[in-house]
Amino acid sequence: MSFDAYELLERVRTQQPLVHHLTNWVTIYDCAQVVKMLGASPVMAHAPEEVEELARLAGSLVLNIGTLTADMVEAMKLAAHSARQKGIPVVLDACGAGATRFRDAKCAELLDAGLVSIIKGNASEISRLAGRQVQTKGVDSTAVSGDMAALARELARARNVTVVITGPEDLVADTQAVWRVRNGHEWMSRVVGTGCMAASVIGAFAAVEKDLAKAAAAGLTVYGVAGELAAAKTAAPGAFKLQLLDELYGLDRATLEKRARVERS
Amino acid sequence: MSFDAYELLERVRTQQPLVHHLTNWVTIYDCAQVVKMLGASPVMAHAPEEVEELARLAGSLVLNIGTLTADMVEAMKLAAHSARQKGIPVVLDACGAGATRFRDAKCAELLDAGLVSIIKGNASEISRLAGRQVQTKGVDSTAVSGDMAALARELARARNVTVVITGPEDLVADTQAVWRVRNGHEWMSRVVGTGCMAASVIGAFAAVEKDLAKAAAAGLTVYGVAGELAAAKTAAPGAFKLQLLDELYGLDRATLEKRARVERS
Amino acid sequence: MSFDAYELLERVRTQQPLVHHLTNWVTIYDCAQVVKMLGASPVMAHAPEEVEELARLAGSLVLNIGTLTADMVEAMKLAAHSARQKGIPVVLDACGAGATRFRDAKCAELLDAGLVSIIKGNASEISRLAGRQVQTKGVDSTAVSGDMAALARELARARNVTVVITGPEDLVADTQAVWRVRNGHEWMSRVVGTGCMAASVIGAFAAVEKDLAKAAAAGLTVYGVAGELAAAKTAAPGAFKLQLLDELYGLDRATLEKRARVERS
Repeated sequence: MSFDAYELLERVRTQQPLVHHLTNWVTIYDCAQVVKMLGASPVMAHAPEEVEELARLAGSLVLNIGTLTADMVEAMKLAAHSARQKGIPVVLDACGAGATRFRDAKCAELLDAGLVSIIKGNASEISRLAGRQVQTKGVDSTAVSGDMAALARELARARNVTVVITGPEDLVADTQAVWRVRNGHEWMSRVVGTGCMAASVIGAFAAVEKDLAKAAAAGLTVYGVAGELAAAKTAAPGAFKLQLLDELYGLDRATLEKRARVERS
Repeated sequence: MSFDAYELLERVRTQQPLVHHLTNWVTIYDCAQVVKMLGASPVMAHAPEEVEELARLAGSLVLNIGTLTADMVEAMKLAAHSARQKGIPVVLDACGAGATRFRDAKCAELLDAGLVSIIKGNASEISRLAGRQVQTKGVDSTAVSGDMAALARELARARNVTVVITGPEDLVADTQAVWRVRNGHEWMSRVVGTGCMAASVIGAFAAVEKDLAKAAAAGLTVYGVAGELAAAKTAAPGAFKLQLLDELYGLDRATLEKRARVERS
Repeated sequence: MSFDAYELLERVRTQQPLVHHLTNWVTIYDCAQVVKMLGASPVMAHAPEEVEELARLAGSLVLNIGTLTADMVEAMKLAAHSARQKGIPVVLDACGAGATRFRDAKCAELLDAGLVSIIKGNASEISRLAGRQVQTKGVDSTAVSGDMAALARELARARNVTVVITGPEDLVADTQAVWRVRNGHEWMSRVVGTGCMAASVIGAFAAVEKDLAKAAAAGLTVYGVAGELAAAKTAAPGAFKLQLLDELYGLDRATLEKRARVERS
């Protein structure tokens, strides 16, 4: 297979890119730690006085609106402008899109300004960003009907971005193709932080691979396989989450290749 | 026994209420995670532009002043007004009341405005809110003498709220009755976050039961039993805290009923 | 040996000093928890209305600029002024110094105002504070050549402070002496939070011992030994970090004395 997720993981481990985050206060530690466990270097910083300078130094920028404020989104714009001018990919985790008008408005501002390279969310978050009338339950997905792959592709074309929908099956779409990643474990939806960490993983991989859909698919494959390995060793979701992080640290080629369930169409 | 804590836990697991928090930055992850482990859905959001809308969608609202600022308390007021208008219970964790004049003043503002349904704190925090001259040591309780049940009842009547005092024996008082919960483990006072998580547990139970004292007593019983189970499986406080969260996830009726030590007088 | 690190640890456990933090949002939980595991009492508070009052009540003050903003640094100044007026030691973790001009400028403001008792950082952070032209990679150290002990002593004399450089060998310098601590484990550099926790540990020890270099050396010895014990019991960095915290909780005299590798010159 021409898709070699492990080769991308090795690039992350070797190049150790700086992954700059402006993120939420709930899972900020987990986002930093997951980047560290991949062998990369996380930095979390949101002061408007320094975000442009830091974003220019970084391999990628991750924005997460989980506990957004108006000021934080202004700092995100400064950082994202700076990153995009240098060709640095910007990931937006649209955490809670569809839960309040404020979140929808702020996502629209970031997207309308062309500041985002990869949009990531769960089914109801992405549906909302694609203009559907759905209500997200806080930051948890609500049931959404319809063809999610078609929806992802539609949003990718409308915004000229890569779109990631996380769920039991992860979807990655750009204007050319759709990737499906069937790795992971149901406990990933039972603990706080796994969705945010997925965006940080995508950020780390986007820092080392120009094909952003491929980068996202590789990152989600690696992350999902680590989840499977962790679930096999733990008995409850909290212990599972900690083990997941350690599995990322130790993941080897043979294990990844044996378990990877990803296809491009 | 007419008190069936497990039946309330089942309601939390089945109804999966949204529990909206405006909380501190230290234990924000733990507060979200404990709600998730109970089967409910946490959302942490503090932007003034969205807190009213989110609070209306929620089953309960939890306010925690652990790392309060003046702006954060203004956002708490907006959220609490919105919640109270719709009859949604509001829990105030009076974290650090009695440590600084600022904390005392901000608690008084929230209480004077009638925005709180349940006040929760340790012995010195609640003593301070009841007007006693005590000094809280940061966010750790100092020794307080006197009849805590009488104090809780006094504050409950003065403020027309439910009052929770956590400690080796948890007390819950409303204008009618006093509940005593004798579950838990001493390690709960040896790690950071267990007090804050107790308020979030109470929030989850208050979302599914109109008798708020009963809801609080049930939540504290469930939480305390999980602590006992966790202590039996771990050798130190840090590992204990993580296990406690996983015990909540898996707690069954037989174990809860066998261990519950709660009485109403 | 006249240096008795365990005796200082016992003072922390017995006196249970309040350690006031104004810190970053990434590792704020870990900073609180490490203080708690040592038997002391952490409080995290940054509202300008209360930091002066809290700092006066504390045994030490820890400032960490990991996710600094201009407002946060103003609150740090208020707290530090208040602490210094009462002779309470102030630890500055210069997290990310050398990464952006903003961080350098804010560190300079704190140091120029004479608000800091102990400066702590990694090799590139401290080099930058000492005026060297180095670039820190976010919050991770970059390679720095030269005699770090000489650099630490130079900065200690220039600023009349105690200087701590963390790394495979920790260095502590004041105007009189240099301490070298050779405890610890490489995994301490592989997870997020260990550097910040080191500053909090130093804060706890500085609250109970007036010789600040001795306090820092003792704290780092205790912390490093806990790291060694944790590494012997765990198989990956994430599990290691949690075990490290629990090892601090249970550390006894015999184990510490057997493993301590510290010298003063």
